[in-house]
Amino acid sequence: MTNQYVPPKIWTQNTDGGNKWASINRPVSGATHDKELPVGDHALQLYSLGTPNGQKVTILLEELLAAGVKEAEYDAYLINIGEGDQFSSGFVGVNPNSKIPALVDKSSGDDVNVFESASILVHLAEKFGHFLPKEGTARTTTFNWLFWAQGAAPFLGGGFGHFYAYADEKFEYPINRFAMEAKRQLDVLDKQLANNTFVAGEEYSIADMAIFPWYGSLVLGRLYDAAEFLQVETYTNVVRWAKMLDSRVGVQRGRILNRSFGEEWEQVPERHSAEDIDVVLAKKPK
Amino acid sequence: MTNQYVPPKIWTQNTDGGNKWASINRPVSGATHDKELPVGDHALQLYSLGTPNGQKVTILLEELLAAGVKEAEYDAYLINIGEGDQFSSGFVGVNPNSKIPALVDKSSGDDVNVFESASILVHLAEKFGHFLPKEGTARTTTFNWLFWAQGAAPFLGGGFGHFYAYADEKFEYPINRFAMEAKRQLDVLDKQLANNTFVAGEEYSIADMAIFPWYGSLVLGRLYDAAEFLQVETYTNVVRWAKMLDSRVGVQRGRILNRSFGEEWEQVPERHSAEDIDVVLAKKPK
Repeated sequence: MTNQYVPPKIWTQNTDGGNKWASINRPVSGATHDKELPVGDHALQLYSLGTPNGQKVTILLEELLAAGVKEAEYDAYLINIGEGDQFSSGFVGVNPNSKIPALVDKSSGDDVNVFESASILVHLAEKFGHFLPKEGTARTTTFNWLFWAQGAAPFLGGGFGHFYAYADEKFEYPINRFAMEAKRQLDVLDKQLANNTFVAGEEYSIADMAIFPWYGSLVLGRLYDAAEFLQVETYTNVVRWAKMLDSRVGVQRGRILNRSFGEEWEQVPERHSAEDIDVVLAKKPK
Repeated sequence: MTNQYVPPKIWTQNTDGGNKWASINRPVSGATHDKELPVGDHALQLYSLGTPNGQKVTILLEELLAAGVKEAEYDAYLINIGEGDQFSSGFVGVNPNSKIPALVDKSSGDDVNVFESASILVHLAEKFGHFLPKEGTARTTTFNWLFWAQGAAPFLGGGFGHFYAYADEKFEYPINRFAMEAKRQLDVLDKQLANNTFVAGEEYSIADMAIFPWYGSLVLGRLYDAAEFLQVETYTNVVRWAKMLDSRVGVQRGRILNRSFGEEWEQVPERHSAEDIDVVLAKKPK
């Protein structure tokens, strides 16, 4: 209670940069270097990284392929954010916000740039007519929970995850603030999943695919090493739902894309055909 | 650099609650008391507060009415979050996440619950066929920026605004972290608006309506008293766009709904017809 910090009149950048993420957090946007993006043979070109936001899109693409939508074939390239790939002129040309994932859809002849993970989910779901009800209450409910995910996850990732797991120093106030909010969000989900098979009702949708990589990973103990701290096993309905999704082939394939971390059988840095995933998953211990 | 805080193994709630917002931040969800929501005569029933997230929806409704969409007539009721109205059984029944705004659409005969500000924007834009392109690149681009707004604003509101303006104590690290991100976001918008009349191109859309109440208010000096700290006037394209939107009748009407704060001519706590706004705006100094 003796904190005496007084902000300056005008914010200026502290350049000491002790944190390993300091080099990728900047007060300005735009490209830092000229470099084109690679382009493969398919109509869909994905530039991403297998973080939770990246997983949303590759799970949808693999679910579409598993559902028999052959036009969902795609090339996926790794964007290494630790090395600043998101600041290349090519990537910024697709996503001026310099965040993964970004998609270029070439199917119409022109390049359509799609960015923000949930915008990519909507684009692909509407394009292929899967996983987003076309009308009525079911459509509205799916959008309710899709937007809930996008507004909630920054408190889990940029808030809780940052201060609990990534920040160089531990501060009680922000850890406490964001842990409380993470638990409240888990409780919201838990009550919803007590009465519904999937997040938006009885149909599997892009709302589940947006929420699973964050909150599903959290309750499965894969995120921030925070399972005990947040007592994730008490959210039994979320755990039930997360295990159900985790057993799906599309989810198992999609969540290991664009990764160069994790177990050997969880790393598919690039994908140009189904085989690129098959050969890696074959290494998974039985 | 001497911070020695070590989080406990299991998070528990600190009940000292010195902050005035402590009573509305909880680690659990759900209703705290039984109370039904009031219901007016129109098909659209809005339960909200004139914060930036609330303003998004009332700006769209007033823009729809200004465009001649008579079916967009609505009743708007004030949800006083400082008094816990968002935890009533009625409100939680519409939005289990207990955040404003929430909408009940009775036009189909059944009650359709719509929550999350951007989900309400999509629901109304699709329902009335305005402010969201129906297909093609323009639709995708509008969703890109709509989702950008929803993912970005938590860093401005829950991050920067909280630590700079609302937290009882000032901490350098989070203020610095979130000020940098707020400036980066303003720069992203500034570059986009250098080449486009509106955020998603040459058409006014729900992306503008989602972004204006946060970033427009910020550069117009209405948010967090942070104009000098963030040097908002340097984002000249954002300022140009914000002033253009601020001069629109729909924006001027929509941004003062569900408020019991600000100037006398900015306070329309409830709305049941256009006249409820007219009489308040008539008090505005010429």
